[in-house]
Amino acid sequence: MKSEILAALRSADGYVSGQELCERFEVSRTAIWKAINQLKQAGYEIEAVQNKGYHMVSSPDLLSQIELESVRKTSWIGEEIHYFDTTDSTNTRAKKLAEEGSAHGTLVVADEQTGGRGRRGRDWESQKGISVYMSFVLKPEIEPGNASTLTLITALAVAEGIEKTTGLDCQIKWPNDVVVNGKKICGILTEMSTQIDYINYIVIGIGINVHNESFPEELGKIATSLYLESGKKQNRAKIIEAVLEAFEKYYEIYLETQDMQNLIEPYNDKLANMKNQVRVLDPKEPYEGRAMGITPKGELIVDTWEARKLVSSGEVSVRGLYGYT
Amino acid sequence: MKSEILAALRSADGYVSGQELCERFEVSRTAIWKAINQLKQAGYEIEAVQNKGYHMVSSPDLLSQIELESVRKTSWIGEEIHYFDTTDSTNTRAKKLAEEGSAHGTLVVADEQTGGRGRRGRDWESQKGISVYMSFVLKPEIEPGNASTLTLITALAVAEGIEKTTGLDCQIKWPNDVVVNGKKICGILTEMSTQIDYINYIVIGIGINVHNESFPEELGKIATSLYLESGKKQNRAKIIEAVLEAFEKYYEIYLETQDMQNLIEPYNDKLANMKNQVRVLDPKEPYEGRAMGITPKGELIVDTWEARKLVSSGEVSVRGLYGYT
Repeated sequence: MKSEILAALRSADGYVSGQELCERFEVSRTAIWKAINQLKQAGYEIEAVQNKGYHMVSSPDLLSQIELESVRKTSWIGEEIHYFDTTDSTNTRAKKLAEEGSAHGTLVVADEQTGGRGRRGRDWESQKGISVYMSFVLKPEIEPGNASTLTLITALAVAEGIEKTTGLDCQIKWPNDVVVNGKKICGILTEMSTQIDYINYIVIGIGINVHNESFPEELGKIATSLYLESGKKQNRAKIIEAVLEAFEKYYEIYLETQDMQNLIEPYNDKLANMKNQVRVLDPKEPYEGRAMGITPKGELIVDTWEARKLVSSGEVSVRGLYGYT
Repeated sequence: MKSEILAALRSADGYVSGQELCERFEVSRTAIWKAINQLKQAGYEIEAVQNKGYHMVSSPDLLSQIELESVRKTSWIGEEIHYFDTTDSTNTRAKKLAEEGSAHGTLVVADEQTGGRGRRGRDWESQKGISVYMSFVLKPEIEPGNASTLTLITALAVAEGIEKTTGLDCQIKWPNDVVVNGKKICGILTEMSTQIDYINYIVIGIGINVHNESFPEELGKIATSLYLESGKKQNRAKIIEAVLEAFEKYYEIYLETQDMQNLIEPYNDKLANMKNQVRVLDPKEPYEGRAMGITPKGELIVDTWEARKLVSSGEVSVRGLYGYT
């Protein structure tokens, strides 16, 4: 009930009367009063004015099961939410849940990760209360070979979710780095359990730097946080909600073709490398050219003097030649 | 020490003296005598003749940690062996071990599975003491897209391992069904945990029907066992060893090109469909043609009247038109 009360207070234009809440949840005034008090103790600033009712003055950036449930507007992501004050890694947790049969859309969020993981087994710094650490389970009926573009779609959803919540302008560095003013704000780790021609499940992990006030010197050159860019303390639950809502939208479009066919335009719109000179670090022979957007398969189109080349995601790294990208 | 004593008795041409065993393992006569007694209690028929020593008369088909260690001749598969009298599923167990950091080559064998799994979530009948249920972990540095042919290589290794141990003639129904006299003797379930361009691990599960004396009516038309085909009770540990030894050999060859390039010939030699008419159940439009072997990518080449077609593993099912395949 607490998450529903929170949602009611949030969406209310002014005050919500105690009577209204009693009727909606079919409980006593005392039950409402108790729930409100617990919410206040948890850090929500709720004003009670006689003859008017309750009013939410401010909501702390407090991740909890209740908070996540109360902000949820998605249709199928987060029907099942697993919130942890601390866990090893939300991806590891989501993979275990998926193995044990958890449904498509199951969401895992943590306030702290003790073993956060980045790509290729790298560590992912995951301090308590600072950032977004979330993962969700997908169980799509698609060919395993068509799953790799989901990571591009996730980047698109993260960019849109952040823009909507913070007003910051986000770009994407192909294939899936979300950057603000040229610095990385988000990491995406897509993991997949498959049979040869069948997907058991996919877990998409998203880490977004939110409250970080600084980064170690080397990292500071390439990484940033929403606080550093916006100068404001953002609300993580709202960011999570906005990202997931955007993901659901793009995912539906993706499913129609199982590739980026109908998402090339929104993706290219955000592509930091678009029409810029890039250096493709092909292990065989590095080369330079002009990035011209993506193909339906999610490859990066690079025009060199000699030919049009298609860069597959994978071991090839693409660097911007000029500017910060 | 017991597995080493077993291995010594097995490889001996005649008797092995107690003194010899004492010296080899640097233990007392009594220790050897105790170990031999324990092996006898476990079901190994070991003869002790004064002034001659010990001699293994017969070895039961008894799966155990010791038995598996004693028959092992592979170089890296089975350096770590996890044997279970009973477990849910050797693939599930191997996946958990891989998640927890178990090494490339880790082997899981069970005498019984309570939740044996086939492809696409189907059940896999796994009675106690009847068949081979084994899975092993691979952690190769290859592109996820190159992993699918590993299932063809596994079929090749199973066919060779069974032939070597039982003398039965095995064929392969593309892509990975091993058949004896046209009936299926083995199931292979390859599962993979990946990041987009990086393999966390692969688990290959192999189930071989060994002692089954009959199958339920419908299944009996398509399935068989080594007992039904050879009329003999085979030794499962030896079959496991032979399959893994063959797998190691073919895996090394696979790694050179990360595809079937150098294995087309041995694979086609065993291909039941080779040069036969087949019906390709393409979901768009089924068609018929003559199977002409595989490509380096593991696709099946099918010549129709109009054109040469390449059938990818996956949702397409291929049926023999004449005969039992």
